Amino acid sequence: MVVVMSPDATEEDVAAVVERVNAAGGEAFISRGVTRTIIGLVGDVEQFAELDLGAMRGVADVLRVSTPYKLVSRDNHPDMTTVYVGADSVGAVPIGPDTFTLIAGPCAVETPEQTLEAARLAQAAGATLLRGGAFKPRTSPYTFQGLGEAGLKILAEVRAETGLPVVTEVVDPRDVDLVAQYADMLQVGTRNMQNFALLQAVGAAGRPVLLKRGMSATIEEWLMAAEYIAQRGNLDIVLCERGIRTFEKATRNTLDISAVPVAHGLSHLPVVVDPSHSAGRRDLVVPLSRAAIAAGADGLIVDVHPDPASALCDGAQALTAQDIRQLAAAVRELPPLLGRVAARRAAPEEAALT
Amino acid sequence: MVVVMSPDATEEDVAAVVERVNAAGGEAFISRGVTRTIIGLVGDVEQFAELDLGAMRGVADVLRVSTPYKLVSRDNHPDMTTVYVGADSVGAVPIGPDTFTLIAGPCAVETPEQTLEAARLAQAAGATLLRGGAFKPRTSPYTFQGLGEAGLKILAEVRAETGLPVVTEVVDPRDVDLVAQYADMLQVGTRNMQNFALLQAVGAAGRPVLLKRGMSATIEEWLMAAEYIAQRGNLDIVLCERGIRTFEKATRNTLDISAVPVAHGLSHLPVVVDPSHSAGRRDLVVPLSRAAIAAGADGLIVDVHPDPASALCDGAQALTAQDIRQLAAAVRELPPLLGRVAARRAAPEEAALT
Amino acid sequence: MVVVMSPDATEEDVAAVVERVNAAGGEAFISRGVTRTIIGLVGDVEQFAELDLGAMRGVADVLRVSTPYKLVSRDNHPDMTTVYVGADSVGAVPIGPDTFTLIAGPCAVETPEQTLEAARLAQAAGATLLRGGAFKPRTSPYTFQGLGEAGLKILAEVRAETGLPVVTEVVDPRDVDLVAQYADMLQVGTRNMQNFALLQAVGAAGRPVLLKRGMSATIEEWLMAAEYIAQRGNLDIVLCERGIRTFEKATRNTLDISAVPVAHGLSHLPVVVDPSHSAGRRDLVVPLSRAAIAAGADGLIVDVHPDPASALCDGAQALTAQDIRQLAAAVRELPPLLGRVAARRAAPEEAALT
Amino acid sequence: MVVVMSPDATEEDVAAVVERVNAAGGEAFISRGVTRTIIGLVGDVEQFAELDLGAMRGVADVLRVSTPYKLVSRDNHPDMTTVYVGADSVGAVPIGPDTFTLIAGPCAVETPEQTLEAARLAQAAGATLLRGGAFKPRTSPYTFQGLGEAGLKILAEVRAETGLPVVTEVVDPRDVDLVAQYADMLQVGTRNMQNFALLQAVGAAGRPVLLKRGMSATIEEWLMAAEYIAQRGNLDIVLCERGIRTFEKATRNTLDISAVPVAHGLSHLPVVVDPSHSAGRRDLVVPLSRAAIAAGADGLIVDVHPDPASALCDGAQALTAQDIRQLAAAVRELPPLLGRVAARRAAPEEAALT
Repeated sequence: MVVVMSPDATEEDVAAVVERVNAAGGEAFISRGVTRTIIGLVGDVEQFAELDLGAMRGVADVLRVSTPYKLVSRDNHPDMTTVYVGADSVGAVPIGPDTFTLIAGPCAVETPEQTLEAARLAQAAGATLLRGGAFKPRTSPYTFQGLGEAGLKILAEVRAETGLPVVTEVVDPRDVDLVAQYADMLQVGTRNMQNFALLQAVGAAGRPVLLKRGMSATIEEWLMAAEYIAQRGNLDIVLCERGIRTFEKATRNTLDISAVPVAHGLSHLPVVVDPSHSAGRRDLVVPLSRAAIAAGADGLIVDVHPDPASALCDGAQALTAQDIRQLAAAVRELPPLLGRVAARRAAPEEAALT
Repeated sequence: MVVVMSPDATEEDVAAVVERVNAAGGEAFISRGVTRTIIGLVGDVEQFAELDLGAMRGVADVLRVSTPYKLVSRDNHPDMTTVYVGADSVGAVPIGPDTFTLIAGPCAVETPEQTLEAARLAQAAGATLLRGGAFKPRTSPYTFQGLGEAGLKILAEVRAETGLPVVTEVVDPRDVDLVAQYADMLQVGTRNMQNFALLQAVGAAGRPVLLKRGMSATIEEWLMAAEYIAQRGNLDIVLCERGIRTFEKATRNTLDISAVPVAHGLSHLPVVVDPSHSAGRRDLVVPLSRAAIAAGADGLIVDVHPDPASALCDGAQALTAQDIRQLAAAVRELPPLLGRVAARRAAPEEAALT
Repeated sequence: MVVVMSPDATEEDVAAVVERVNAAGGEAFISRGVTRTIIGLVGDVEQFAELDLGAMRGVADVLRVSTPYKLVSRDNHPDMTTVYVGADSVGAVPIGPDTFTLIAGPCAVETPEQTLEAARLAQAAGATLLRGGAFKPRTSPYTFQGLGEAGLKILAEVRAETGLPVVTEVVDPRDVDLVAQYADMLQVGTRNMQNFALLQAVGAAGRPVLLKRGMSATIEEWLMAAEYIAQRGNLDIVLCERGIRTFEKATRNTLDISAVPVAHGLSHLPVVVDPSHSAGRRDLVVPLSRAAIAAGADGLIVDVHPDPASALCDGAQALTAQDIRQLAAAVRELPPLLGRVAARRAAPEEAALT
Repeated sequence: MVVVMSPDATEEDVAAVVERVNAAGGEAFISRGVTRTIIGLVGDVEQFAELDLGAMRGVADVLRVSTPYKLVSRDNHPDMTTVYVGADSVGAVPIGPDTFTLIAGPCAVETPEQTLEAARLAQAAGATLLRGGAFKPRTSPYTFQGLGEAGLKILAEVRAETGLPVVTEVVDPRDVDLVAQYADMLQVGTRNMQNFALLQAVGAAGRPVLLKRGMSATIEEWLMAAEYIAQRGNLDIVLCERGIRTFEKATRNTLDISAVPVAHGLSHLPVVVDPSHSAGRRDLVVPLSRAAIAAGADGLIVDVHPDPASALCDGAQALTAQDIRQLAAAVRELPPLLGRVAARRAAPEEAALT
């Protein structure tokens, strides 16, 4: 059971709820978000129902749902959410049920030239958001770990040049504020899906979040990770399926295409697919992109690189100029058949109205 | 290394090849198919190359490929294969690169009425082949195991009534001849993918084979299983991806959608997808069907049932009359975008020409 | 619910039970074993309870258990079973709760000399049962498939020479009678764990059965496979854990050591462990053997080979003369700490009394 | 290739190495540890060999190993490492090849009384280190997340009372210094195995680290995670196998018992096993503990709780007073058979000599 406090609830209001729950033998966990406080109750749910918490001062809502996640569940929120990215920089790009959004760019930011070239490739493919890593979580400590803040600056310059809002990964809770200064959307990677300190930090950062599924996380655990972000008052979350770990070796991971309709059934959050990290092979990216669109994904996130052979990270899966035409055709032709329009950027002034 | 003998090779020709290989310290495994004999060589490949086997009497071809499967590999056979089903009964239905073929019907044959109703549903969805199980391999010995020969007779009657050629499973090598009398295509199920005695028996049965992927088989092992069938002289094999076993519990299995383009890259055999057994849930069948078409599958095999609540097998995943319209739309609209036409049955006289 | 008929029940008795069940709207599946007939009931269990089936003529027992397997369940059979192997040839060797039994031998029978040498190595390690494959299910059709009946004859000769009863695999239901003529125990391999035709055939063969766990089977499915054998009247079944398929690549499979105590808790059947096929690496066989003994296994089945470098099958995992001493020490020293004695062969006359 | 600088190397020495590598077209990644700086080289290894880096000022060693981990690899360090825990508090307890160390305690610290009682149970089982969580990473944000610093204080009090050094988890790099003030050993949990910011922070904290294997990490990835810690100059790392994620549902995770000998073969670091989180079931903890000892583990980490039914975390797997005797017997009797003595705490003055 979850008690959602209203934005103007006072500390006393919160304390009163906690006290009443404790008096009934329950436990109350307080999560203070940016705009509202949420109180999770653990204990005898039947008994809590008798406490009439909904009538207490400062209480906006009392949610009683059977799923272990509440705020991201579709049970209490049947309409699908649209998340807007870039509203306060170059203009908002929607990710949601009515549109189809292509996010593309280099796996890692290496140089200004490589990043700009990759962004131009991304645009040629129909992308309206730019991806690119400045902080790279790498399995081996002896491989390229990203340019850090220098990479963030390159991304901001390329955004200014191209008009593409920027999605980039953050790996350390201590870096969240820094990354949020440059980026339009914060990405939490597969290895950090259960890094709860990081989830809480991005939940409080005032930026939309792209939450990749852990490579061996169930869909339920993925939604629970999203709940950690939502608890801090941030519901601008986009889920990203990027392949799970199985015994099959022909692909780097196994794209769990079923996760798209399953997550859409359980949660109101948008779902995008990363065919590049799923497959780990360039030749599969376009077929898997088509499959993702057909399965109902709200968008794609794809690696592109002007010269994959020299890429410092994951070159084997990056699309090149030659492959872009096929991806562009898929992104242009298939979504309309499923009732979607290509997501385009609103001008900043329009975006202010969303 | 594989030596393919010509159809008119004699026993002496075969023996001469074996003798030359043995003399060089190698081992030769003979597989006698319906129309030709194949000799697999184990040992020092470099040395075999010096034996000049290709010049021996009765030798049609000597294949030296790096993959562990040879006859089903695309390396020696770059053009994709089209398999025809039903040529000697009601007329041939193609499964291959230019068409899209829907196979549908009940998981299990229960009664003549239920089977005919399901076949009518299948046709309404656009199906041109009828699936239905008479021999059911079931995890528990206390559940319905199928009607056996009585079920095969029902399938044959429904074929006569509807004009749909029949695909049905065989689970015991001793039943292959019986099933081949009634069926147009023999199905080998996921639990039997490495039942090598059964693979060899269907390889010799003179019927096309639908080979389901084992639920924990790699794609390489799946192609090796197909090779067992091919070795007996039968190359009319259709691969069927039906979901693999992973840790995810939201779906019965995890549809490995990447297996479609991966198998197409490695083998010339057609690939179809079974979204019903992958998901185990009715609500996911249409989205996964769309994804399979978009990923490049040559067809689908889908469970339908006039009254799933009373089904003796897998009712939770069977489509009903209400769901059929969506499936029909997907099967009608998506394949043309990928350059395919709906597979239709040739009249028997036409089929004789194929 | 399961109705177990008494050995002297008549066809009429069986028919009467089926009729009463059908009249109540249920379905009855008849399994005729060698010594008794078992009737599985599907339908409304509450209603069946009112039919008073236990009082009908020819009914020995009515089992109502919540697990999906009945005859192999410990619920109705709390005492652990001891299976005796070799009683009608060289003398019975027990596998059960009071003893520890080492089964060893070559993965595949290649020649009389190699098999005898391997049997001598097995005895040096403390083995009292000989393993060896004459019919080999191999992933690739181009690898050695076993010597067939010639291999069975070699095994019988080596049994006569060494006094070790023989465990060997059967892969085709059509071969069960042949193999049962030579072997003391029939092995069903991992790829055939759900080959139900084969399970039923070995259930009727009058020989104890070693049932390997499928490489991706749950423990519940494994017990259900054992139930197929038990249904035919054969409860002389030994379960064999041999590693499951996971993402880890350092070992050929992942030994699921927990399966030993889990299976012992659920079933009265003995459980042995195959460390050789689990690991696929010689250096891990002894540590995993120790772990299996410590976890409570009733025995081990281990590959040994006089010259692994020349082995036609799985040489990388076979123990050699050098490794035997360590295995022998583990088998000698650890079981007594767990209250077990080394399983020795009774002389044939003693065995007749068991 | 890895360049290990000597402790007295200057910034100029480091810069000179980097410059020479860059001049040769390579890239150099600098990791500054507490006591030494390590430089990882990416690029053409053959070419680096010609640079004669070993002769440069400030270079202690140049490692060229084929494994992707270097400092934790056994290739350059064949002798097994012993890690000492508690040297600067109550006295050092060894974990290494000659001893067997039991770590036990409550999953979560709840109250001073519960923690002390659990510590007494742990001692009764033979434990010489106390585990207990103050920061709990939980899948759901609505469950108990630990007492935080209040929990750390309780642990320190119980250490003073019992003389048991304390092992406790840290989940946020910002908390590492705080936790290191109270704890003798820092635990990195399964969900954080690839939280590289946290690994680097504990690598610099001056405390031994218990590194749990990620629930879907390969053994190679686990060693690579250890390498991140080692790179910061901290080689006091103990690896902990705690079960991996598979399809089997009878246990919470699948204990990968083979990981013990595999990791011992690849790395010089000690390996302990967590049977409690592997199984998730109290009844399996003792059999799995025996198996772990027999497989060669250097220790165990086990959940105990005075009243599991009221536990706020993982009560189903905690051993109680009744189960302790069996665990104590296993820990007392089995290790000597494998050449190990029970690990006991040196008095602080003795410990100072280690």
